[in-house]
Amino acid sequence: MNTMHFRPDAEYARSLDAQDPLARFRDEFVIDDPHLIYLDGNSLGRLPKRSVTRLREVIEQEWGQRLIRAWNEGWFGAPQRVGAKIARLIGAAPNEVLVSDSTSVNLFKLVMAALQAQPGRDTVVTDALNFPSDLYILQGALKLAGPQYRLVIVPSTDGITVSHDSLAEAIDERTALVTLSHTAFKSGYVYDMAAVTAMAHRVGALMLWDLSHSVGAMPITLNACEVDLAVGCTYKYINGGPGAPAFLYVRSDLQERLLNPIWGWFGQRDQFDFALEYQPGPGIQRFLTGTPTILSLSAIEPGVDLLLEAGLEQVRAKSIRQTDYLIRLWETVLQPLGFRLNSPRDASRRGSHVSLGHPEGFRIDRALIEEMHVLPDFRSPDNIRFGLAPLYTSYTDIYEAVMRLCTVVVERRYEKY
Amino acid sequence: MNTMHFRPDAEYARSLDAQDPLARFRDEFVIDDPHLIYLDGNSLGRLPKRSVTRLREVIEQEWGQRLIRAWNEGWFGAPQRVGAKIARLIGAAPNEVLVSDSTSVNLFKLVMAALQAQPGRDTVVTDALNFPSDLYILQGALKLAGPQYRLVIVPSTDGITVSHDSLAEAIDERTALVTLSHTAFKSGYVYDMAAVTAMAHRVGALMLWDLSHSVGAMPITLNACEVDLAVGCTYKYINGGPGAPAFLYVRSDLQERLLNPIWGWFGQRDQFDFALEYQPGPGIQRFLTGTPTILSLSAIEPGVDLLLEAGLEQVRAKSIRQTDYLIRLWETVLQPLGFRLNSPRDASRRGSHVSLGHPEGFRIDRALIEEMHVLPDFRSPDNIRFGLAPLYTSYTDIYEAVMRLCTVVVERRYEKY
Repeated sequence: MNTMHFRPDAEYARSLDAQDPLARFRDEFVIDDPHLIYLDGNSLGRLPKRSVTRLREVIEQEWGQRLIRAWNEGWFGAPQRVGAKIARLIGAAPNEVLVSDSTSVNLFKLVMAALQAQPGRDTVVTDALNFPSDLYILQGALKLAGPQYRLVIVPSTDGITVSHDSLAEAIDERTALVTLSHTAFKSGYVYDMAAVTAMAHRVGALMLWDLSHSVGAMPITLNACEVDLAVGCTYKYINGGPGAPAFLYVRSDLQERLLNPIWGWFGQRDQFDFALEYQPGPGIQRFLTGTPTILSLSAIEPGVDLLLEAGLEQVRAKSIRQTDYLIRLWETVLQPLGFRLNSPRDASRRGSHVSLGHPEGFRIDRALIEEMHVLPDFRSPDNIRFGLAPLYTSYTDIYEAVMRLCTVVVERRYEKY
Repeated sequence: MNTMHFRPDAEYARSLDAQDPLARFRDEFVIDDPHLIYLDGNSLGRLPKRSVTRLREVIEQEWGQRLIRAWNEGWFGAPQRVGAKIARLIGAAPNEVLVSDSTSVNLFKLVMAALQAQPGRDTVVTDALNFPSDLYILQGALKLAGPQYRLVIVPSTDGITVSHDSLAEAIDERTALVTLSHTAFKSGYVYDMAAVTAMAHRVGALMLWDLSHSVGAMPITLNACEVDLAVGCTYKYINGGPGAPAFLYVRSDLQERLLNPIWGWFGQRDQFDFALEYQPGPGIQRFLTGTPTILSLSAIEPGVDLLLEAGLEQVRAKSIRQTDYLIRLWETVLQPLGFRLNSPRDASRRGSHVSLGHPEGFRIDRALIEEMHVLPDFRSPDNIRFGLAPLYTSYTDIYEAVMRLCTVVVERRYEKY
């Protein structure tokens, strides 16, 4: 723990870095431009050095030299092998997780499967903080499932959180499925996974969590929370690379009861028998469809390894310290400049990103990127979103970003955008 | 043209190589082991040297250095940009083709879209030569679409071809969609695209071709044949790498009439407005779903460029010469050893692979791989499949492979497997 008291200066930031038990992990990443402050690791994580090596091996040796033989030398098992590693990040058994397709396609597969497994129930409950692509998938899936189905979108009164009470009101005996983002993409609000899952189960609904903004930033305990289904992204805190394939989780006792709606050869029992009739494979395999994108998939594993080495308890502890630190800086120097905190104050209900709203948010964000060498993200209408990735974000990064943000506002540099 | 007459010897093979106008393209590929004869380019194409360079750039510069900015510097447009290049391989307009997902997922999207656009029609016609994953996708899609739907699988009497007469009998006013593999994965039989498409259109059915075993091996003229829909694979003759994302084609006048059933944010109009209601984007964009797998996608473009440089007329001419040559060798030296030709004799109805059946096919294939440094493919029950990729397969490869095959049989080397 830091022995100094909070001060909004560079020395204090350096003292926090000096005491950071995860500091050494920064060197595991390619950081070629020391002046760039990258606070968008929750959109696209940085490139691990090990992934450069691993990808060369996959491209030049496996594809280039082993050719088709590489399928039997590791590629066929890759969706399950990498899935089993991700299982350790999310509190699942190794045979409950697969890497495949995109988060959206995986969500589609699991939602359709859940609806078919819940005959007589005709609503799906989600919330207005969910990632829009998830809402689109739900709208499309329900349209396909039939006119009797209805999507209930629980609103957020403050744009930051959703109360358990309003969720509880929406969930009833007609609910087939409750599906939410565990950490909200805009505000960073984190649901109580155990409590909400229990709420769904009390009325016999299935629970599906989108873990995209949580996985790799905090421990997740799917099995302990008795979660039924989950999906998630690998290119944020897992650092799996642009558009890396996503993962899906199906609790083991549900696997044989659920049917993937997209029947492809990788989900087929005894795939190379080439039978003309589809027969779903055993266990989690049935949730695969087509040929896995091996290059993109291969980049995921080194990122997972780094998180397992760091330990998710450590990662979460640093994430909380860093978001707390950013919020202290906001209070001290940004609030007076007109910034609002659009993320929860309570660290236990907050993920690893912090959103700051400002009436000039869009133009300030442009100025940060174009002139100040800071890369945050912008989310409409006025949120500048700062993603803190504990494996490589330093306290000095955070301090320096806040100082540059001050400069943009004080010198009114945003006005030209 | 070769001035020598066919002779089953190495000198004749060398003379064919010496006169091959595409010979220089072999040097565009990574070929590290000169003794390995690779005849499985129709399962996984070889690694183009340019792809090694391109992938390094994408990984180390774009992901490593440009980070999130790379999305606006080329990644967002990649599915359309690479799609527009593939359009030139298949006789389509640039705005009619996208790279996305796997062939199976793309097929699912287009089949569901086609069924919804054809109310009142309740059958889908395909054939028993189609790739099994396509049949599985159809079975799953029809199950989802409702109990009124029926899949008609037209049989093949010889396992090599399907007659137009038996297709014509199966297609009628109830047919919503006809969907076939243009080149059959096992026998290499190639349908007459114009004739079959016209047959479907005469009764008001839509026509969807799976081009996986055709694209990059022959010119395809989707627009000239008035084809409605198509999908295809990029990791065979396009040499896009293991599990590279697939492509889909929707004829431009159909795009606004059809709806992708999997509604994701990359298909959404004004994606970054993050509206809560799905609104399909204009034109071909609506057939995207989730985030594209950028690393795997990036490896496709150099492969397409090589084919465009070689010219598909030249590629097809060499492919025919090479499959003809292999069949002459079969007649001369393999038929007497008990091999049957399980591909069409007529070059105009044959793709770029040749299947040879043998009662000991499975064990012979094992011996070729384990002892003889030849990599063909095996397709049950007894087919050894030789894929000839005109950009890098030499006549000497073919001759040498046949000689090694003779050795395996004459010396009964397969008996130990």
